Order: sequence, then C-alpha cells, then structure tokens
Amino acid sequence: MKTDVASARALASAMLRAAGMDAQPAARTAWALASAESWGRASHGLLRLPYYLERFSAGGSDPRAVLRLVRSTAVTAVLDGGNGLGHHHVFEAATKASAMAREHGLAAVAVANSGHCGVLGLYVEPMLDAGLVGIVLSTGPAVMPPPGGSSAVVSTSPIAAGIPMRPHAAVVDMAMSAVARGRIAASAAAGEEIPTGWAFDADGVTTTDPREALAGLLAPFGGAKGFALALVVESLTAGIVGPSLATEIADPLDGSAIAAPQRIAHLVLALDPACLDADGASGDRLERLAASVAAAGGRVPGARNRHTSEIADDDELTIPDRLASSLVALAASLGVDPPGSFADR
Amino acid sequence: MKTDVASARALASAMLRAAGMDAQPAARTAWALASAESWGRASHGLLRLPYYLERFSAGGSDPRAVLRLVRSTAVTAVLDGGNGLGHHHVFEAATKASAMAREHGLAAVAVANSGHCGVLGLYVEPMLDAGLVGIVLSTGPAVMPPPGGSSAVVSTSPIAAGIPMRPHAAVVDMAMSAVARGRIAASAAAGEEIPTGWAFDADGVTTTDPREALAGLLAPFGGAKGFALALVVESLTAGIVGPSLATEIADPLDGSAIAAPQRIAHLVLALDPACLDADGASGDRLERLAASVAAAGGRVPGARNRHTSEIADDDELTIPDRLASSLVALAASLGVDPPGSFADR
Repeated sequence: MKTDVASARALASAMLRAAGMDAQPAARTAWALASAESWGRASHGLLRLPYYLERFSAGGSDPRAVLRLVRSTAVTAVLDGGNGLGHHHVFEAATKASAMAREHGLAAVAVANSGHCGVLGLYVEPMLDAGLVGIVLSTGPAVMPPPGGSSAVVSTSPIAAGIPMRPHAAVVDMAMSAVARGRIAASAAAGEEIPTGWAFDADGVTTTDPREALAGLLAPFGGAKGFALALVVESLTAGIVGPSLATEIADPLDGSAIAAPQRIAHLVLALDPACLDADGASGDRLERLAASVAAAGGRVPGARNRHTSEIADDDELTIPDRLASSLVALAASLGVDPPGSFADR
Repeated sequence: MKTDVASARALASAMLRAAGMDAQPAARTAWALASAESWGRASHGLLRLPYYLERFSAGGSDPRAVLRLVRSTAVTAVLDGGNGLGHHHVFEAATKASAMAREHGLAAVAVANSGHCGVLGLYVEPMLDAGLVGIVLSTGPAVMPPPGGSSAVVSTSPIAAGIPMRPHAAVVDMAMSAVARGRIAASAAAGEEIPTGWAFDADGVTTTDPREALAGLLAPFGGAKGFALALVVESLTAGIVGPSLATEIADPLDGSAIAAPQRIAHLVLALDPACLDADGASGDRLERLAASVAAAGGRVPGARNRHTSEIADDDELTIPDRLASSLVALAASLGVDPPGSFADR
C-alpha cells in the first residue's frame, strides 16, 4: 500500500504507547522506524514493529523501561536501558555525547542493557548537527564465527560513522558481515545459489547453498580482517559495556527466545574536529576529500540519505500489503484507531 | 645473516643519531624497527632505514624535528611533528593519551605533520600497559580508489586496536587494503597471477596481472565496505588533523619524491573500560569473549606477538644478507662503527 511518513510515524507511535511505552520513547522509536522506511531500509522499518510488540507481551523486553544514568565523568557516561528498546536510548546517548564533546572536544556514552535500535546511521545526526564526528557501535545476537571456527562468537557488529563534510555529511553505516541474513533468505526464496564468502554451513564450512547458510553462520566481509574489526566492535560494546556478550543475546529468529531479555550494549563516540585540527583547515580539507572521491568517479557514503529533518510528513512510503494488514489488525487488538492512510484499510 | 635484537637496535639508533636525530627519538625509532623484525613484520623493519636516511639527506624529512604541542583540552591534544619520522611521535602521543584517559576516562591525541611510523600495532602498548583500550589510525600516500573509481583517493588507511583481555591482549593491526603492495610485488617476482580483489590496473579495472597491479591501484579489502572504512580513517587523520590529504603525500616508491615532505597525520584514542562498564564486570566479560573465540576454533588477533618489553636483547633476528651489507656500508658512510653482530661483516 501507499502511505506517508506522518501516518507511519503516528501508527507506530500509537501502537507503542498502547503497549505501555511513554510518549517520548514511543515517538523516537516511531521516528526511527519511519526514517528507516524513508531511507530504503525496510528491513529495519515497520517490519520490526510486530516483533517488538510480541517481545513486550512475552516479557522479553520492557516497554516501560526508563533510561537511567549509572556513572559518568565529564566526558564519559554509562546509561542503563532497563531492557527496553534501543532506538530512544541510542538517540539520547548521542545527544548526551554531543553536548559533552561540544564542551570538552571528545565524549563517549555507553548504553548497557538495551534492545534492538534499528538503523545505526540515524544516531550520528545529533553529532553531525553539532558539527562533530559521530561513531556508533552495537552488538546483537552472535552470527559470525572466527576464521577457521565453527560456532558464532560475534554479532554482525554494525558500525555507523558520521563525518561533517560539505556539501553533504558522509554517513557510513555497515555491518561487519558480508551480507545481511535477509539477502541470503531472498536467494533461498528465489532458488538461487549465493556467492562464496557470504556464509558458512552449520559446521563452519563455506557454502553456496542459501538453505545451508540460513541454518549456518554468516561470514564476515573480507574474511579475517572483517572478523578482527567485528571483535573490536564486540569488545567495545558487549565486552566493556555489557551485560550480555553476543553469544548470550537471544536471536530474534528463534521463536522460543521471545521472552528472553537481550540486554544489548551500544557505544556512542563524539569528537570535535576543531580540537584535533592542527591548523584550523579541517573543514576545507574534508570538503576537498569529498570532492576527490567524486572526481575519482566514486560516491561519498550516505550522501543519498536526506537528514531526517528534511523528510517531509507527506513523503510517500510504500509498505507491503501483507505488513500493512497485519499492522492494522495488531493496532485493533491494542485498541488503536489506525491513523492517516491506514484508516482506509 | 643472524643477528640479535640489541644489535639491530644499536645499529639503527647509532645511524639515526649520526643523521642528526636526538637520542630519545632515535632510540624510539630503533625500538620500532627492531620490534617490527621481532614480530615478523620485516616490511616495516630495518628495510626502511636506508629510505629514512635518504629522505633526511634529501630534505624530505627532518631528522632534527621536535614534537611540539599545538593545542589541547583536558582530553584532547594536537601535536606537530615538524615533518620528522613518526615512530617517536606516535609513541609520545599514545603515552600522552594514556595519561589523559587514566584521569578522565577518554582521550584523543592527534599528530600532524609527521612521517612514516612503521608497525601501528606497537603504539597500543602504552594504552594496554595502563589497562586502557587503544586505537591508532594513520594516513599515508593515496593508493586506493573509491568503488567504480579510477584514481587513488585514500591510503591503505591502517587501524590498530588494542583491547585489554586475559590471558593476552587482543591487538588488531590491519590496513584497509586487501593486501600490501609487497605481496603483489612478490607475485610479480614469482611470475604468478594474483587473485581477483587484490588490485586494479591503472584505469581502475580489476586485474589478476601483478605487473599491471603494481602500475595501478590497490583494492580495499571487502570492496565498498573496506573503502567506506578507509574513508573514515582518512577523514579522522588527514582530513581533520592534516596538513596533507593522502592524495598530497609523496609516495615512497616514487624516487623523484624523495625530497618532498609527506606531512602525515596520525590519531590516537584511549578509552578506560572502567568508565564505560555498567556493572564492573568488563574484565570478566572480555576474558570470556577471548575464551569463546578459542573455543570456537579461532584465535584472538595479535596474541602471538609478545609485548615488546618481553623481547630479550639477545633474541635472534634473521636479516637478509643484502640488507645487512647495505646497512653496514651506510653506517660506514655515516661514520658509525657497526655494533654487535654487525661488526663481524
């Protein structure tokens, strides 16, 4: 179906509110889901909402979670996410890191005991808005083995990095896995082989059979180097922040784990270029760097994604009909009147 | 020839002193070169010494460079390397970052206007010694194009990361290029094809001919993802710190550039796990993470490299005869008596 950003946000927010979330976290989660749709990242969009609500009902995640400060210095903070969803938590962490880094040049804010937070690249916006470099890391369920290994020890280990550049910020947003599991599922559905290097079977052997891959393990991008970076991400999130290692985080694809808390860790870093710039020319240099990428025939990552403040309420979104129907039915079961274009279904 | 660590350090230090370096920077550079040999990284070891000395003579690099503080906050600092060699500069930056992070939980120290610094993984030691996570980034001459591009815009964009883990620290030390240029040169010498994904010809087209690759461009590991990370490294070093972008840094393989200043930027980050740890259990979690890698059949990166303080003076090193002869001849031309086992040649 065709809908628009405002309707998607309103539906998601109302459903999350009905499930017990406070207005602000619900609105932030809805912003994250609708922005993911707008950025063409449907796998982290409204598709996730039924699963989030199911986990609330089952007790795997707490809709009433309150983000709480555990400890802090002038430039570091640890927040506890109360086993709630991650979107609001990571946005608040990024906002806090930005404020601290504006004052001191550098800041790190960790979120412990959190949940899925969707598109990581969204959370560099508070840093970019303040003229800062932002880096966001997260853990998640273990899906990748070490080179030569046969069981998963690290998550897809996503990294987002926002670099203030003219005319557009660079926003890198990538997992350390070669591809997302969804892409392998699509190959399986289409009956196509997958390339070598995407995945392993359940014994850790490289496979080109997508069904074996889905029952097996994801491969890090670029082999041992990708794994090494994933291990750094896992160390900086699950290892240091905690409380769960990737190996201890319930897999959303495992239905029996719906009631199991995930207790995911995230880490946000903010750096002020002005404090690390030897000659005051960093703005010009970053602009020349971006220009050199274009001149070489390349593209600065993320330049195609609009800042979420530029996404208009009436921007059109296309949602799969089946998803729209299930959201409307789910809304009804929560006593929510479907807003906007969803009301017509 | 067979030699030992103490002789290699003494020879390098004496030659650098004779070329005009002060005792402390010369000793630190010699430590870096001998440690690289000991870690099996001969490409960043004594092999580089004749080139460093040649650049000193030609005026491309300043042996008398003094590391100078440009600006600082409680948790950030920018040092100017005076167009000298990088080894001493990066070690001092790491030492300063460690002290600041011990006090405040987090620190970033940039080095502008520096030179080649050898094995990046060496410089996480001051952080690991203080119980901190250490991350070190550097730029260098441009060798990699963006995806679909035909000219180089980023360097190999190396990253080192040290994570305090029991029983051994994890030390990741990797370039964002698929392989080092030296490995392609070895294939060319052996008359062997190189795999797809290692390099491009001069027009940016993937090649399996090592001679075309040597005249062309290196490929980022893992394609577009590797390039995206390289762009982050280039932004955080050359872009923000400066003064040279990778595209402006003289290529050491270009003999005509021997007199051209490189003015390379490095960045060191130090984080105290205790300030980002929600429950005080990060030490145990990191230990369990390391154990899980081993249990899965993998290996924690860098665990085979001994801490440089554990490298004994009389540890044996094997140096190619031709290199040893040229070092001894070069020493004689500098009025240096070859020390230890080099005296017998």
